[in-house]
Amino acid sequence: MPIQWNNLDQTKSYALLRQTDSLINLKDDLTADRIHSWSIPAGGSLNYYYGASMLSETDLDRLQALADEQQLIEKYRAVLSGEIINTGENRQVLHHLTRGELGDAVVVEGENLHNFYLEQHQRVRDFVDKVHSGIIKGSTGKQFDTAVQIGIGGSDLGPRALYQALKQSLTPKMKAFFVSNVDPDDAAGVISQIDPETTLFILVSKSGTTQETLANKNLIMGRMQALGIPGYKSSKHLVAVTSKTSPLAGSPDVLDAFYIDDFIGGRFSSTSAVGDVILSLTLSSRVFEQLLEGAHEVDQRALNPEIRHNAPLMDAMIAVFNRNIVKLSTTAILPYSQALSRFPAHLQQLDMESNGKGVNRRGEPLSYPTAPVLFGDSGTNSQHSFYQLLHQGSDIVALQFIGFRHSQRAEDFRFDGSSSQTKLNANLASQIVAFAKGRGNTNLNKNFDGSRPSTLLVGDRLDAKTMGALLAHYENKVMFQGFCWNINSFDQEGVQLGKNLTNDLLAGSSQDSSLAAYAAILGVR
Amino acid sequence: MPIQWNNLDQTKSYALLRQTDSLINLKDDLTADRIHSWSIPAGGSLNYYYGASMLSETDLDRLQALADEQQLIEKYRAVLSGEIINTGENRQVLHHLTRGELGDAVVVEGENLHNFYLEQHQRVRDFVDKVHSGIIKGSTGKQFDTAVQIGIGGSDLGPRALYQALKQSLTPKMKAFFVSNVDPDDAAGVISQIDPETTLFILVSKSGTTQETLANKNLIMGRMQALGIPGYKSSKHLVAVTSKTSPLAGSPDVLDAFYIDDFIGGRFSSTSAVGDVILSLTLSSRVFEQLLEGAHEVDQRALNPEIRHNAPLMDAMIAVFNRNIVKLSTTAILPYSQALSRFPAHLQQLDMESNGKGVNRRGEPLSYPTAPVLFGDSGTNSQHSFYQLLHQGSDIVALQFIGFRHSQRAEDFRFDGSSSQTKLNANLASQIVAFAKGRGNTNLNKNFDGSRPSTLLVGDRLDAKTMGALLAHYENKVMFQGFCWNINSFDQEGVQLGKNLTNDLLAGSSQDSSLAAYAAILGVR
Repeated sequence: MPIQWNNLDQTKSYALLRQTDSLINLKDDLTADRIHSWSIPAGGSLNYYYGASMLSETDLDRLQALADEQQLIEKYRAVLSGEIINTGENRQVLHHLTRGELGDAVVVEGENLHNFYLEQHQRVRDFVDKVHSGIIKGSTGKQFDTAVQIGIGGSDLGPRALYQALKQSLTPKMKAFFVSNVDPDDAAGVISQIDPETTLFILVSKSGTTQETLANKNLIMGRMQALGIPGYKSSKHLVAVTSKTSPLAGSPDVLDAFYIDDFIGGRFSSTSAVGDVILSLTLSSRVFEQLLEGAHEVDQRALNPEIRHNAPLMDAMIAVFNRNIVKLSTTAILPYSQALSRFPAHLQQLDMESNGKGVNRRGEPLSYPTAPVLFGDSGTNSQHSFYQLLHQGSDIVALQFIGFRHSQRAEDFRFDGSSSQTKLNANLASQIVAFAKGRGNTNLNKNFDGSRPSTLLVGDRLDAKTMGALLAHYENKVMFQGFCWNINSFDQEGVQLGKNLTNDLLAGSSQDSSLAAYAAILGVR
Repeated sequence: MPIQWNNLDQTKSYALLRQTDSLINLKDDLTADRIHSWSIPAGGSLNYYYGASMLSETDLDRLQALADEQQLIEKYRAVLSGEIINTGENRQVLHHLTRGELGDAVVVEGENLHNFYLEQHQRVRDFVDKVHSGIIKGSTGKQFDTAVQIGIGGSDLGPRALYQALKQSLTPKMKAFFVSNVDPDDAAGVISQIDPETTLFILVSKSGTTQETLANKNLIMGRMQALGIPGYKSSKHLVAVTSKTSPLAGSPDVLDAFYIDDFIGGRFSSTSAVGDVILSLTLSSRVFEQLLEGAHEVDQRALNPEIRHNAPLMDAMIAVFNRNIVKLSTTAILPYSQALSRFPAHLQQLDMESNGKGVNRRGEPLSYPTAPVLFGDSGTNSQHSFYQLLHQGSDIVALQFIGFRHSQRAEDFRFDGSSSQTKLNANLASQIVAFAKGRGNTNLNKNFDGSRPSTLLVGDRLDAKTMGALLAHYENKVMFQGFCWNINSFDQEGVQLGKNLTNDLLAGSSQDSSLAAYAAILGVR
């Protein structure tokens, strides 16, 4: 059957789903049997548990019907085969290809793109080998021991979260820093911590024209050159990750350039050269390849049309249920792992930039809500911060927990009868149950209504493969959700107006008196 | 007139406010004149601009009437004079006293508490002097150069955000690290970065019984002792910040102890010894005193009963308007300053733990929504992340911008006609206008509706005094909001159930089969 692109509220199964007259009662229905059996292998050692969601078996059947009617797997296959999915920008969507081929060969303008991504990875690996072995050195002949990624948005959040997630699970080959914000204090802070002679900078911008990234590159290179280090030049200390058509490609000012293309959106680019260079330099190419392996396994599992056997698909359907049937407008991501404390920031971009839209892929207005506000922080820290509102606040928040049976470093300590890792996971288990089942009290200040739904992703240990699986889980979840809502998840027109006003203001061509007023208040010019 | 504690919906002025039949149209009404004149000096160099809110002059008058009717200033005065404001726990609320006296002397059980806080600050200052001058040294006779705060929630988020905010504005006296999460990888990560012989640990727990903090203290001290450093003992390397009645007070295992009491809630404790020890050690006592000075100025200004002249009061009233009249369920905090990137995490606790409640101060259920979900990250980074949803998503999010005319370090660079700081603030000005005014386009994918309200706090430069003002602005705003909603903002019963279930599980006394199921999945035991 040919693919049809229909709005959610044009489908029969959504009409049926809206007939859900009462949600299940988690207090009684969250049985041990349901908890264990409502689970899906999610790639690597990851398992997805959805027993604490608000769904009945009937709801599950209806969500399956919705997934079928919206042709979510067929649409995913179309992505994999290189159809034009990003309608707004008239482009293919090919980030899956960076970690393996699952459909027909994708050939664009005569180039097999799987081969192109493989070739770029091979080039990065060769470059990284030369840096690690000292064949490529800094301008004063010293070996590089530090890499600084200069990029913003998808060139920053994903790679940064991945580095943070994995740096403690192994001995890094080099230290990593990230400069993203055009605030000059961001670059100044990093500059104060590095040795210029042993630092390699990575400029990441697909277009080669990102305002913040170019400003930071110029600020940093200006500062480096002002130090008067003999023979210092950017062509010894700066590599670029960019598209072949950008002004940076082939520039004599860079040591080397590694290529991406327009078919990989920034927020989906962590498994391309955008993540490859910084992560391979600092964690090793082997670690990056394990990450790709975990992601590819998830991509493969995501082809299963049965929601009960496809974790990102089920996660997407539960998200749609929570948003459009239960009417929850916020989602919290709660990893019980300090290494994942930056991961929610990446997911904010992935989810809110992809699906925070009010029009469908044809540009027609939608009459149902799409992406919720997503926020989060690591547990148990967040228990001592915003959980008060989650337990007793006015609005119910959809909760997504992440946990691991083992810590990254086996450096634990038994105190008061249990290890820290045991305490961590005892907290996680207890929170899920406390949110779901609550506990009555005649003193309403101490009363917990419960009925706060959650899902849980559990892995053995946060290693590179598991991290790759986790990353791809959310990428695929966001894609399925977008298909279900009939959104183009791969453009971001909502960021343009602010950019345009900024450019006008800086060029002195703005006529807007309110903009001039704020500019004056902020000392612009 | 005696103070009356009424719910928001029992007031006449709220009934009047709900008659607001149409919101102003920011597209036309956001004039340069309104932007400049709708501003309030907010302490130090800070100014609060609220022209881009959705309020008409009539709304302002009605909000003034509401502030009067709910006796917000009288209630604040009651706080300052030591009345029992925290009804749930039957306690005074005295964090303002840590930075100055604004009411009658507060004497509890014969002790003048302003003097008590001053005395503790003096003790911290003397201790810090001895550490900095080398009179107090580590067990091997080396001078301390690193301080590690072990604490969670309010003992972590506020002090951490303040350290992050200020560390680049000066040359730190010592390095700071923070261990909060019971995840053993958190402590392991910090341990790998410190020299045990030159590191002073600060254990922060009011009760002296916080599970995570004690686990981390024992893990860290166990690891330190296992290193076999001659003469190493905790009484040479560990100080406590705790209450006088805690098991840590007077313990022979600590070098010294500095005291707090039950009248200062964790999330309001940054200006007590909880923040004092770590910030004075690392940034200097002088810097901490400037912070207190900025906070005290704001506390003083907050006594003004006119909302048009009281920034935190106006901010609170606008927040109530946004939540209860415009029905916005989320708020984004968007500081255009990389140094403030952790500040939203502190505000999450401050706001959501204080006011994320469904009952009034007498424990009766409320029929109106209270604290929204609060999230945020630094701009311009967040522009490349979740602003897509803010501009074009389904739900309108209340926006709070923060900016500074100058960077912390004067290390800037002109590129493409402007400095980075100018670009940063041009972006900030443009975003406010883009959100407020939008821009029509017949291609709805490129259309911006506008009408997204915001407020703006602007300072000269993020120094200690300004940071203190910013901190106190939000503390007072949250307090006023709580009064307006008739909430007890100073307890947190919503965190208890999870704690109880965790303790039962770890003690082996839980009978809950669903808890046992999750515990098994997570490898607990």
